[in-house]
Amino acid sequence: MATARRTRLRPEERRNQLVALGVATLADRPLAEVTVEEIAAEAGVSTGLVYYYFGSKNGLHHEIVRRARDSMLHASEPLAELPPADRLVSTLTRLVQYVREHGPTFYSLVRGAASGDEEVRAVIEDARREQTERALAVLLELGVPETELLRIAVRSWVALAEQALVDGGINSDLGDDELVGYLERSLGGVVAAVVPGASEALFGVPSTL
Amino acid sequence: MATARRTRLRPEERRNQLVALGVATLADRPLAEVTVEEIAAEAGVSTGLVYYYFGSKNGLHHEIVRRARDSMLHASEPLAELPPADRLVSTLTRLVQYVREHGPTFYSLVRGAASGDEEVRAVIEDARREQTERALAVLLELGVPETELLRIAVRSWVALAEQALVDGGINSDLGDDELVGYLERSLGGVVAAVVPGASEALFGVPSTL
Repeated sequence: MATARRTRLRPEERRNQLVALGVATLADRPLAEVTVEEIAAEAGVSTGLVYYYFGSKNGLHHEIVRRARDSMLHASEPLAELPPADRLVSTLTRLVQYVREHGPTFYSLVRGAASGDEEVRAVIEDARREQTERALAVLLELGVPETELLRIAVRSWVALAEQALVDGGINSDLGDDELVGYLERSLGGVVAAVVPGASEALFGVPSTL
Repeated sequence: MATARRTRLRPEERRNQLVALGVATLADRPLAEVTVEEIAAEAGVSTGLVYYYFGSKNGLHHEIVRRARDSMLHASEPLAELPPADRLVSTLTRLVQYVREHGPTFYSLVRGAASGDEEVRAVIEDARREQTERALAVLLELGVPETELLRIAVRSWVALAEQALVDGGINSDLGDDELVGYLERSLGGVVAAVVPGASEALFGVPSTL
């Protein structure tokens, strides 16, 4: 912090620093409890400067949750050059690693859905939509027919994955491989529940569920 | 409402009436927006009487969410006399019917998880725990071995079911059978993702996922 206090940063750098400090505090407490005062104190700047950048405590919270969401989506960015099934496993592997390394941030994101703040909830809903689209893209490329039920199913699988990442990724000693394997196979299971036979395309084995 | 205004109720009846009015308002708006004033006005009593029964707006909210949770759990109560697989289908069928008939209440329950109020969240988490135990009981009776991953998987399936009930039960024209079938088979898929071969016990067909 001593460095931060002494350093004169350019506006964009300062803004970045304040948001990064906010994301870091998510390791200790929920977003709703992050205050302008503590972020100002940690950065060695006045509360007025924090208000200047973010307008209000809510404005600060929105930037923090956006940054946390973006870091999660970035960490699990699909590698377009991989074939679809491998791309899925690669995405899930990096998602599990992200959750293992940034458990409290991920937990805050998930629990941010339990925020009274509508914009915070919208940011998180946006991440879920993006993860749904990513998984759906894999399935469509594998030839699974797009139906209303398939969309509902994949979105429901994202809810499953989020819960499994909290319970299995943060609060358990489950191995990384075990968790990745569960996420991958559960998507196969969900698809098989929608389109019997689809898991053949996904996993090269006939589905009989 | 005219009747309510004129009737003198016994304390327990009055309390019940106020909570029921509160649950009914969930059809129109989220729990957080339900006020003591409107409930008092609808029942034709003073706000003081509402405070007398519930202590505070939060106290009123807690009773409303408890009542809504209990009605959902009651509607989907497993029939102990049925064999496990039939019991599961029967529970899911009544759950889908409940969501179709009380969509806004169910939605408020799910969105109550997005409440800033810790006790409201605890009431809803409690319902999820109960649904997890119900599904787990079916699987254990069917001979699925109980492991840490199985518990995590079934809890994650409850998150899946909740999302699918919102997206498929409230906001779509999906048939009841289609939704019940998806929920049932997705649990099979999730179990198969944990214990290859388990879906054989569940559905009498070999799992190859």
